[in-house]
Amino acid sequence: MPTRTGDEGGHVQRDTIVALSSAPGKGAIAIVRLSGARAAEIAGKIFHPNNAAAPPENRKLRVGKFAAPGGRAFDEGMAVLMTGPDSFTGEDMAELYCHGGPAVVQALLSAACDAGARPAAPGEFTRRAFLEGKIDLVQCESVADLISAETARAARAALGHLEGGLTKALEAIWGKIIEVGAHLEAAIDFPDEFEPGAGPAPPGGPMGQSELAGRFSVIAGDLAALEKTYRSGRILREGGRVAILGRPNAGKSTLLNYLLGTKRAIMSPIPGTTRDTVEEVCDIGGIPVRLIDTAGLRDTGDPVELEGTDRARRAAASADLCLVVIDAAAGPEEVEWAAREIGGLDAPVILAANKMDLPRANLPGENEIPARICAISALTGEGMDRLRDLIAASLSGEDGGGDDQRLLTRERHRDLVVRCRKAAENGRAALERGLSPELIAVDLNEGQRALSELLGRDYGQDLLDKIFSTFCIGK
Amino acid sequence: MPTRTGDEGGHVQRDTIVALSSAPGKGAIAIVRLSGARAAEIAGKIFHPNNAAAPPENRKLRVGKFAAPGGRAFDEGMAVLMTGPDSFTGEDMAELYCHGGPAVVQALLSAACDAGARPAAPGEFTRRAFLEGKIDLVQCESVADLISAETARAARAALGHLEGGLTKALEAIWGKIIEVGAHLEAAIDFPDEFEPGAGPAPPGGPMGQSELAGRFSVIAGDLAALEKTYRSGRILREGGRVAILGRPNAGKSTLLNYLLGTKRAIMSPIPGTTRDTVEEVCDIGGIPVRLIDTAGLRDTGDPVELEGTDRARRAAASADLCLVVIDAAAGPEEVEWAAREIGGLDAPVILAANKMDLPRANLPGENEIPARICAISALTGEGMDRLRDLIAASLSGEDGGGDDQRLLTRERHRDLVVRCRKAAENGRAALERGLSPELIAVDLNEGQRALSELLGRDYGQDLLDKIFSTFCIGK
Repeated sequence: MPTRTGDEGGHVQRDTIVALSSAPGKGAIAIVRLSGARAAEIAGKIFHPNNAAAPPENRKLRVGKFAAPGGRAFDEGMAVLMTGPDSFTGEDMAELYCHGGPAVVQALLSAACDAGARPAAPGEFTRRAFLEGKIDLVQCESVADLISAETARAARAALGHLEGGLTKALEAIWGKIIEVGAHLEAAIDFPDEFEPGAGPAPPGGPMGQSELAGRFSVIAGDLAALEKTYRSGRILREGGRVAILGRPNAGKSTLLNYLLGTKRAIMSPIPGTTRDTVEEVCDIGGIPVRLIDTAGLRDTGDPVELEGTDRARRAAASADLCLVVIDAAAGPEEVEWAAREIGGLDAPVILAANKMDLPRANLPGENEIPARICAISALTGEGMDRLRDLIAASLSGEDGGGDDQRLLTRERHRDLVVRCRKAAENGRAALERGLSPELIAVDLNEGQRALSELLGRDYGQDLLDKIFSTFCIGK
Repeated sequence: MPTRTGDEGGHVQRDTIVALSSAPGKGAIAIVRLSGARAAEIAGKIFHPNNAAAPPENRKLRVGKFAAPGGRAFDEGMAVLMTGPDSFTGEDMAELYCHGGPAVVQALLSAACDAGARPAAPGEFTRRAFLEGKIDLVQCESVADLISAETARAARAALGHLEGGLTKALEAIWGKIIEVGAHLEAAIDFPDEFEPGAGPAPPGGPMGQSELAGRFSVIAGDLAALEKTYRSGRILREGGRVAILGRPNAGKSTLLNYLLGTKRAIMSPIPGTTRDTVEEVCDIGGIPVRLIDTAGLRDTGDPVELEGTDRARRAAASADLCLVVIDAAAGPEEVEWAAREIGGLDAPVILAANKMDLPRANLPGENEIPARICAISALTGEGMDRLRDLIAASLSGEDGGGDDQRLLTRERHRDLVVRCRKAAENGRAALERGLSPELIAVDLNEGQRALSELLGRDYGQDLLDKIFSTFCIGK
């Protein structure tokens, strides 16, 4: 059960909330969920099982009809009770399965409210699961990530978090901090043994300064390793932005279509965040990739073309990866152009030398320009598998082949991990400067607070409001 | 079990189908359904219950993880088995409740297909329920109607059909046809007793001609009564089209906004079917009403204004009801204009005399013009409750206050009921002309065939394809 600084939480009898929990719109079936002390009672007022004589059984589906309290039935379907604490929220819950039409759903929600429920706020079911101590904050966030996952790999990574992958990594660090804290307290109580060069402590006794400093280093190192996972974690969660750059007629559009065509299933155009590009999403090696097509780059005085070039450069500046496309058959000056262009880019670069089906200019070596180089033909598909592998490898980063189950995926994670790491580094520096154990304990507490906030062991209403406001209603 | 003319149906072991059964898009939870002989086996390959030791129990939810066969878990959720014939389709079914994200759903559908299921065609679950004799065709259609119902009243009407309201009315007529058929057969076997004016048959004997003619009249009358329900049934299912007509500044827009504002919940703009009007849907007395705003009508030579006037007239021509709005404070010539205009309209008309908060011209009596008249102020809301009642009464028609549970709602219903009624009338006419029982039996068979087709007791693949192709996938 998390410690709370607000007035929420704990084994409080909360009011009963209701929401549509399946996607809005028309479908064969919709799910309306109730959670709270009166869930079973309210469900009983609006759901009338066909076999009313049989007593309701936990988690057993019953067939019956839905009606407003005292009203005529408007739908038939199924309902189930899930008694707490062994439910998602930890409270008593009911799930109602009605026909998936907007009017039916609206009638069922109204009926539930007439019977005493109130409409749930976004994420309120998950928030209750958190307040009941069923899952921590990192796990709460992973619930939202599972829903918005754009590839199966992203979903598996989110499930890893929900199963406690990142939680366990953070708890291991937490344990080390607690251990160091115990030694610091001992040092405060027995200051004589806490001296520079005092050497390893006797079993059960306080650690010496150098050993403590070593422990701080380990903690900082563990946190730094987690920090490094942020880029690939963020890309897996939000998608990697890949800007496709090149001069007109280099084959950018053919390349884009080829990449999109390989996995049309999860593709959908979304308006670019900069409002001047349209992104297309595809799955490359399990990573959701947002391909940003740009206008051709060329030296021009024409204001319209200049505007296109500006947009291309802005897209490149915000990209996780730039894909520079050249027409390798166009002669050496195309290669020279690319080398110049790549020199000006901040993001990692892959140089796609297109039209390899035609006689082509010599390509530079990978030691000559700061880019991976891949000869392709967007027309015949030659080299495209390797290009996809290079894109996936670049977006996965150094942790790409590793463990998706313990990546930092949100800025909130990264910021708090950085805060904790800096506290550990400050602690070590303070030790080395021979400061008193009391002062070092201040740094340690700061680190502990950061991890507490990350896991939601200590939280305020504001933090919860901020996190759950981004959830969909019904979750 | 329906009789089939195709190769489908009956207690066949069908392959196992899978589909997303909740609405597409993002939600907290999604439902993926399986139906067919291998439903339980396939579910067992992709769902791994946390408490695997406990044997699965019919209709009991289990918590667990989802994975492709042999793959790593990508989500956690719940699953339930529903063994046939006591299931919606009558076959073995499984329902899987996963997190409602597109990638998770896609992964789960792929996993099910990898495990041996195939993607379901639109309406295939309901089609199987029909083929297994769980519901008739009219009930199948009501499933689609429940989902697309736009008001709670429309949903209740659809539920009435699903519960067999219309089916019972049709079966009562069917019973009368069968009875007449038995007497006709007797008449064929004992032609001597089947003579004009032979009077009531002895108990158990064949009916005389006049008595049979009376029976045909009753059948035709029952069918004619059903036919009359088609307008209100169609309007409840598809929505009633109400064209708002009036001269500029009569207050059409204020009126429209007032009507819409009263029930914004289920309102959404939809593109007009004629592409030149935008319809707004609202709930008036439980009826989904499509309000069609038109340009002001005025005598003009300006081509742009003429085009607007043309569109208004087209909207009026296709409307179920015209709402003519006048500025009652504008003087008698506004009333005269309305009287002329109303004379040219085919649909029922309500004359809304707006601005009753101002001093106004004398209104005509309801016996002077073919319209209901209602003084309103769209500004203050005065008279608006009565206007809504008048709109609802006009769209409900003569059956409005009656029974929503046995309305004809589709053209298919109406056409077949008309065919059956005409056959009954032909039969009576043939009797009256003294034709032989064999010839009269031809008419009777024709009527029986029409009812058979309506209920789906005799069907071809084409009919089923046509009906179920309009269903959503997953239903």
